[in-house]
Amino acid sequence: MLVKWFFFEKKMNFDITILGCGSALPVKHRNPTSQIVSIANSNYMIDCGEGTQLAVRNNHIKLQNLKAIFISHLHGDHYLGLMGLISSLSLLGRTKPLSIFSPKGLEEIILLQLKLSGSYLQFDLTFTEVGFEGLHNIYEDKKVEVFSFPLKHRIPCSGYKFVEKPKEPNIIKSKINFYKIPLKEIKFIKRGADFIDQEGKLIPNENLVIPPRKSRSYAFCSDTIYNETIIPWIHEVDLLYHESTFLEELKFRAIKTMHSTAIDAANIAKLAKVKKLVLGHYSARYIELDEFIEEAQPIFKNVHVANDNEVYNIL
Amino acid sequence: MLVKWFFFEKKMNFDITILGCGSALPVKHRNPTSQIVSIANSNYMIDCGEGTQLAVRNNHIKLQNLKAIFISHLHGDHYLGLMGLISSLSLLGRTKPLSIFSPKGLEEIILLQLKLSGSYLQFDLTFTEVGFEGLHNIYEDKKVEVFSFPLKHRIPCSGYKFVEKPKEPNIIKSKINFYKIPLKEIKFIKRGADFIDQEGKLIPNENLVIPPRKSRSYAFCSDTIYNETIIPWIHEVDLLYHESTFLEELKFRAIKTMHSTAIDAANIAKLAKVKKLVLGHYSARYIELDEFIEEAQPIFKNVHVANDNEVYNIL
Repeated sequence: MLVKWFFFEKKMNFDITILGCGSALPVKHRNPTSQIVSIANSNYMIDCGEGTQLAVRNNHIKLQNLKAIFISHLHGDHYLGLMGLISSLSLLGRTKPLSIFSPKGLEEIILLQLKLSGSYLQFDLTFTEVGFEGLHNIYEDKKVEVFSFPLKHRIPCSGYKFVEKPKEPNIIKSKINFYKIPLKEIKFIKRGADFIDQEGKLIPNENLVIPPRKSRSYAFCSDTIYNETIIPWIHEVDLLYHESTFLEELKFRAIKTMHSTAIDAANIAKLAKVKKLVLGHYSARYIELDEFIEEAQPIFKNVHVANDNEVYNIL
Repeated sequence: MLVKWFFFEKKMNFDITILGCGSALPVKHRNPTSQIVSIANSNYMIDCGEGTQLAVRNNHIKLQNLKAIFISHLHGDHYLGLMGLISSLSLLGRTKPLSIFSPKGLEEIILLQLKLSGSYLQFDLTFTEVGFEGLHNIYEDKKVEVFSFPLKHRIPCSGYKFVEKPKEPNIIKSKINFYKIPLKEIKFIKRGADFIDQEGKLIPNENLVIPPRKSRSYAFCSDTIYNETIIPWIHEVDLLYHESTFLEELKFRAIKTMHSTAIDAANIAKLAKVKKLVLGHYSARYIELDEFIEEAQPIFKNVHVANDNEVYNIL
């Protein structure tokens, strides 16, 4: 049994699938923003630009495992695929409730579209507004806690941080044999109980277990101007996706449109001491992405450029 | 000069490009409904399902020549690409006004989305509600008249008919030489004037011209249940696009969802004496389309199945 449990913990996936890493103007082979965060086979969507439902299908994402959707802001390239996705989920027979988190206004748009299309969904749709100041725990299930935090963009915009739920400690296999611990006791020990052996001797919990692996974490920051306020909220995450709409030559345009450059993203990653940085949300003017790496890597070494249909595993 | 004019008339295109002929659920290689009607290099869009702006780009359609958009109804697979298209037109620098025709409600959706995205368009957008009873002339420019007519669907839904503007008659070349008609008189003769020759003799207009080619026409009918009411409105059009969401085996489902079968479409084409029928708006369950032809052709011989990215020329 232990071997199986150990194997099970090892197998828990924490992946980010890039469904789209483009920006406002459509580009061939680069969809507008959408991602699937998959944790232990539960799926969570961040943003849902036009065409996302097709990208979901092309990436063989299982929509029945979709637990919640987190929309960063109400620019079209981040949410215009949502109404179509919701309709399709209903047509495909979804009955499980679906929670949607976003800055204010999305509920009004979706309910108006549902009303005018005469549609009745087969499942409950709940909307929660985000966008308060600071870091807020907005969603929680058995596998993950999700936090929202404000980004600085032309309209209210939210970043999201996904943190794996703390795991139970692992029991030390040799102690089971040594103290003859019955299987039924193991779950209590994993939750912190001490053990009394056959001779009535108390074995303290800390002698029986090894601490669990640190919870993995992922932060999504798009769209935003360079903003050091977010650093404590994304501190030491395993993976940071940070927008870099422009290269440095267009820094003035980044400031004007409240976007970031590759160097901005790298500086944030460095200051926040994250483990890995993935860039995305490139302006349509950029076809090749090598220069994004060239500009960011001198500041933050472990930087990657997102491409559609890539999967980033957090190990 | 005459040769040039004749050549010019021959060159006037009247094409329909199928950007999407799918229905509510997304299918690989089949977009939701959208078409471009191109008349003498002016473009008119019918419906604008999700992903249309990418299909426009893939088909090398010139958006700067887009004169007006006609939306049949407010089911998502017919309009969810519109907001993205409008945003892109503005980002790409459009300043020419754009007219949008649709059943009631679309203006409210688009204006709400524009407001919440904090967007200001670079061009004037005007909305006109359609959906009155009978055939109505709703749009007109130098090249075309467009008519709306009500279809029968679960929500208000409009068909559209495009009729080429009547052409001027063609002057008979041999008469120019025979009567020594000066070039400057030709435009008046083409508009119906008689001619007085050098000897003062009146030559009646009908002796100088041959009637112009009959105006070409196209009708779009999607989505609709079988409905003979539309027959006079689409009578003898050169090309009819009629939805056939289902094959006959699912006739009960067509009735329930207020759609048509291939046989329904063929019967309408036959009764309306159209020249050519194109089927489309297939349910996602159909991959191969041969059976649509097999069912429709015994009733109406000149039937075709639409596929995405096809162009139908009306000659």
